[in-house]
Amino acid sequence: MGDLARVAVLGASGYTGGELLRLLATHPGVRVTVLGARQAAGRTLAEVHPHLASGPLAGMRLEPLEAEDLPARADLVLLALPHGVSASLVPPLLEAGLRAVDLAGDFRLPAEAYPAWYGFEHPAPDWLERAVYGLPELFRDVVRGARLVANPGCYPTPVALGLAPLYREGLLEPGPVLVDGKTGLSGAGKEPTETTIYAATQDSVRPYRFPRHQHTPEMERSLALAGAEPAPSVTFVPHLVPAVRGVLITCYARAAAGATTETLTEALAAAYAGEPFVRVLPAGAMVDSKRVRGSNVVELQAVVDPRTGAAVVAGAVDNLVKGAAGQAVQNLNLMAGFDETTALPTAGVYP
Amino acid sequence: MGDLARVAVLGASGYTGGELLRLLATHPGVRVTVLGARQAAGRTLAEVHPHLASGPLAGMRLEPLEAEDLPARADLVLLALPHGVSASLVPPLLEAGLRAVDLAGDFRLPAEAYPAWYGFEHPAPDWLERAVYGLPELFRDVVRGARLVANPGCYPTPVALGLAPLYREGLLEPGPVLVDGKTGLSGAGKEPTETTIYAATQDSVRPYRFPRHQHTPEMERSLALAGAEPAPSVTFVPHLVPAVRGVLITCYARAAAGATTETLTEALAAAYAGEPFVRVLPAGAMVDSKRVRGSNVVELQAVVDPRTGAAVVAGAVDNLVKGAAGQAVQNLNLMAGFDETTALPTAGVYP
Amino acid sequence: MGDLARVAVLGASGYTGGELLRLLATHPGVRVTVLGARQAAGRTLAEVHPHLASGPLAGMRLEPLEAEDLPARADLVLLALPHGVSASLVPPLLEAGLRAVDLAGDFRLPAEAYPAWYGFEHPAPDWLERAVYGLPELFRDVVRGARLVANPGCYPTPVALGLAPLYREGLLEPGPVLVDGKTGLSGAGKEPTETTIYAATQDSVRPYRFPRHQHTPEMERSLALAGAEPAPSVTFVPHLVPAVRGVLITCYARAAAGATTETLTEALAAAYAGEPFVRVLPAGAMVDSKRVRGSNVVELQAVVDPRTGAAVVAGAVDNLVKGAAGQAVQNLNLMAGFDETTALPTAGVYP
Amino acid sequence: MGDLARVAVLGASGYTGGELLRLLATHPGVRVTVLGARQAAGRTLAEVHPHLASGPLAGMRLEPLEAEDLPARADLVLLALPHGVSASLVPPLLEAGLRAVDLAGDFRLPAEAYPAWYGFEHPAPDWLERAVYGLPELFRDVVRGARLVANPGCYPTPVALGLAPLYREGLLEPGPVLVDGKTGLSGAGKEPTETTIYAATQDSVRPYRFPRHQHTPEMERSLALAGAEPAPSVTFVPHLVPAVRGVLITCYARAAAGATTETLTEALAAAYAGEPFVRVLPAGAMVDSKRVRGSNVVELQAVVDPRTGAAVVAGAVDNLVKGAAGQAVQNLNLMAGFDETTALPTAGVYP
Repeated sequence: MGDLARVAVLGASGYTGGELLRLLATHPGVRVTVLGARQAAGRTLAEVHPHLASGPLAGMRLEPLEAEDLPARADLVLLALPHGVSASLVPPLLEAGLRAVDLAGDFRLPAEAYPAWYGFEHPAPDWLERAVYGLPELFRDVVRGARLVANPGCYPTPVALGLAPLYREGLLEPGPVLVDGKTGLSGAGKEPTETTIYAATQDSVRPYRFPRHQHTPEMERSLALAGAEPAPSVTFVPHLVPAVRGVLITCYARAAAGATTETLTEALAAAYAGEPFVRVLPAGAMVDSKRVRGSNVVELQAVVDPRTGAAVVAGAVDNLVKGAAGQAVQNLNLMAGFDETTALPTAGVYP
Repeated sequence: MGDLARVAVLGASGYTGGELLRLLATHPGVRVTVLGARQAAGRTLAEVHPHLASGPLAGMRLEPLEAEDLPARADLVLLALPHGVSASLVPPLLEAGLRAVDLAGDFRLPAEAYPAWYGFEHPAPDWLERAVYGLPELFRDVVRGARLVANPGCYPTPVALGLAPLYREGLLEPGPVLVDGKTGLSGAGKEPTETTIYAATQDSVRPYRFPRHQHTPEMERSLALAGAEPAPSVTFVPHLVPAVRGVLITCYARAAAGATTETLTEALAAAYAGEPFVRVLPAGAMVDSKRVRGSNVVELQAVVDPRTGAAVVAGAVDNLVKGAAGQAVQNLNLMAGFDETTALPTAGVYP
Repeated sequence: MGDLARVAVLGASGYTGGELLRLLATHPGVRVTVLGARQAAGRTLAEVHPHLASGPLAGMRLEPLEAEDLPARADLVLLALPHGVSASLVPPLLEAGLRAVDLAGDFRLPAEAYPAWYGFEHPAPDWLERAVYGLPELFRDVVRGARLVANPGCYPTPVALGLAPLYREGLLEPGPVLVDGKTGLSGAGKEPTETTIYAATQDSVRPYRFPRHQHTPEMERSLALAGAEPAPSVTFVPHLVPAVRGVLITCYARAAAGATTETLTEALAAAYAGEPFVRVLPAGAMVDSKRVRGSNVVELQAVVDPRTGAAVVAGAVDNLVKGAAGQAVQNLNLMAGFDETTALPTAGVYP
Repeated sequence: MGDLARVAVLGASGYTGGELLRLLATHPGVRVTVLGARQAAGRTLAEVHPHLASGPLAGMRLEPLEAEDLPARADLVLLALPHGVSASLVPPLLEAGLRAVDLAGDFRLPAEAYPAWYGFEHPAPDWLERAVYGLPELFRDVVRGARLVANPGCYPTPVALGLAPLYREGLLEPGPVLVDGKTGLSGAGKEPTETTIYAATQDSVRPYRFPRHQHTPEMERSLALAGAEPAPSVTFVPHLVPAVRGVLITCYARAAAGATTETLTEALAAAYAGEPFVRVLPAGAMVDSKRVRGSNVVELQAVVDPRTGAAVVAGAVDNLVKGAAGQAVQNLNLMAGFDETTALPTAGVYP
């Protein structure tokens, strides 16, 4: 890949697609050459995303997902499609020589997990085995050379980043982890439903899809990949809260004997020293999803309750940035040899 | 106490005070005779609570908290004051023959817990021992005859109601409970602070005051009182979410061998059959804090994750109604011999 | 009609239907005998409105709109249906002897206005002529004896109440009125659309449907009916704001020579002295839609800008209560001879 | 001024200060050399604005506003201070050779207007006369060479941009303009007050400070400066709505004979052809404050109501960007000879 990477974005019409294009429009090393979509094919980017109508890509027209000449027009493809679509769409592109970052869940789990957690039989188990889990702070080296990167889910990103170093350092006891997740509504996408309208959501806090949320096995697998030994089982209860951007997770484990808020905090700080996108809060400070809004930063915090021995690790990301599009651009940067931080804000849009 | 109870409301100017008066204004058996406040003394109710300006109490003037003739003018006093005030204010009133419902935390814990959890030495440990924990669905009988009722906290209410029957039936394994709480901003009161302004709160989800929230020992104590044997230790992490009314708690415990979503749900349904203010959701349905807004209802739900063995119990209340003012009126109804549901809505204000 | 009015609610499954039933469930003189709906027919009220699941009507089952025996089972029918449905549905019911309150726009305008403003030819122009505009504070007397009451729209209610007395007293110059409306999302109903989902609505303020909003001619007509002479033309721009309940209107007219904030305020106060549901704010105070939430109250305020001569009248209602269901119950109370305030809260649910 | 402009930001601790630093941190031609604040002096930027804690300026320490050596350390100063402070602070800096952009209202009006609208006698009327009103799309040429730029207010920005071309083209009748403004809460700043807390703001829409809002004469003056002849009088009613970022204004004037939605739209489009930060919507589309959030774009739309002859012009900006910090950077770019769009996003952060 040369200096100017030609990039195709498939699934350009959704919220994640819009966020990819907000970021890529400022990327000096990337030329966006193809925008693909299903229903929105034929419309311009400005029509589909009016908030991008004053930018450089505003006049580009979206094409159907199956454009035959795609391989000739792009070096790298980013896919932000509903679960189950890229599993079939990606393999021919890879075989034609492209590299890919898939933002759906189609390449994150072992093949045998798909029927139970995603409701389909995986059509490309061989590519699944070659896919790399694209969490740069933990797996940077394998991402660089990867042909296919599975971009992590929004909830698993802070869970893996927050817990992996503590397990590796032996600061948490082996055993089950309980993960309580809170998310804003942008994670539910643009599709209007009875439960995502404003009238039903304001002043509403509610769990959903427990115990069947597909990010549960992804959390378990990413912790195993990151060296948690033995890998903990995860019980995960996601909740919808009246917010748009932002995922906050609160993980409950048992502190190892002698572990304190300070030792946990130091372990996290040491693990992420020099990482541009990880902010470990000092003991006593509390994570806040609003502070990372619009940025590629994850905020992490660890606390031991000395009375009960519980260790609590909390983390916050913007689900559309570090939890999706930003992390995908970070992976693209690694794959294409750009500075890893290119086009990725560290400043939140606050308030 | 006769048919028409003379009621004093001390702390009438806060959100909880306003909610008490919204409810009491519709109570056919109550005459509100005294409104007490600190800074707001001298103003009318309409000035302090403009949303009550078209109601029957609008013209009443707030008095200082320490009115000397209070005992002669009321039979029962409701106190919605900041923690630490009623501990001193209540004993003389009780000794003068009044009965009291305290909505603060001043009479909920054993005396020895106050320095650590509330930051003060309790001035009236003898009255503390005679105080009754006013959670009617669990302790109705002792409330009826009580002179002093400690009205439960907003978080402990759904925790105790959701877990107590399951512990008593042996459906949860003894051991630690993890409680993840989410609350709207009305619980933070009217006092403006840097962290409660709208600009800092919209799109913000954040934990707070962990591991020192004063509702933690109250949860442990209420479960012990309700017969959980041995009483579990509680790790409690509260979170602020961008909502006004509503508390949602998600409790994580271990399911006993053989326990399922169905057996837990049935146990809750059986425990609360006929209870007008407890709504146990059928298996598969999810609690929603918005549905109980403005009402005295608590929604409960239980789920077992068969994969990990975790039992999750979720509950929702309006923190100002079932979590404060509504429950206080429910206690007043029991104490004064009114129908327990008088002046207490079961219909949420939705959407 | 006897003491216990038998009431049918058609359109029981929408937000307005739910609000009608929240109010009627507390009405001592009403027995709800029929619930009608289209898609929701066959389901129970608790299923359709889970926030009413602990109330007395929870188990009632919704029926199709066209139940043949409806006339035998009800004395009065309240219709909360999409525009254009009741125009056909109501006449046979009236002819069978029922009385009706229509909450849609089907009986609010002259027949010739329907094609342009509502997009249909009115099927019952004769009934249209006999319909009474049900704004009790202005037209109480004709409501009492009416067979068919057209319940006013949410925006026109505060506009007519705020402007009519000032025109009648000659405090506003004849001439055009500009009405700037702001509404929360509950007015858009339950139907999910791309523009009503939470993600698209938070932090979004936007005008809509200008200059074709159907409440425009209703404002002109209600002012004419109320004696504004000559009746002003109305330019009306409605806006969606990120709220659920609440309509706030800001009306701009020219103050008559010599008119001041004080004279306008006094005129409003005099016009509504003794009205239980109208709250005229003193000079200097500002209306707030939150203060009337959940109540049947309208807040009004008038200000003259002495520098420019503009007169500004602002008003706020809860669009589902005084702007719809509450006003319908107020009309029902008048029609059936109940105390006009029965089952209608004056206290807002605040905060 | 050389390639690398040394910039001081006074008032760095507020929301506008934070936004200035979010933008300037990405500016390749600027070195921020001084951060000034009042109470926050002594703290680091990361402490004051945790959302900037991962950026390049995080470790800078805020200094008192009156640093004596400021003139030696900066070429240009941006002041984001409460009204009334920079009027005294700026003149010595200008006399020491610095250039300044004042984001407060201290240099926007004629001296004689200050007592009535801002409550103080202006201490530097001579500098006031030399100040340039920094609305680049209208006054770009004078901004380039200015020593002192008065950065426009958030409300006047879209009002002037929306109305000025239409007055100049004779498409609006001379006469009074009515401006209805809606703003989110970030405009109220960080200072916590009873009316800006979340609990009081959610579901609340309310006018404020009418008819004394200080942006009123600024609107009149900017229209006069821009060539509206005769300049219209402005009646301005601002409203608080439950949002954080975003100002939407709706202006009501009389359309000139023959003017239509199309001719107004064309006039706006022609006036702003090639402007990177002005987006004129096609006839039929509606402005939306959310689409410009986080960007320096203003959205404009014009509609004529053929029935009443009213012309309505609506506009939306992010009050912290195009309404404050972004426009200040745009002015800085012009003054220092950078490309006018440097460091200024055109893409909104959506949803």
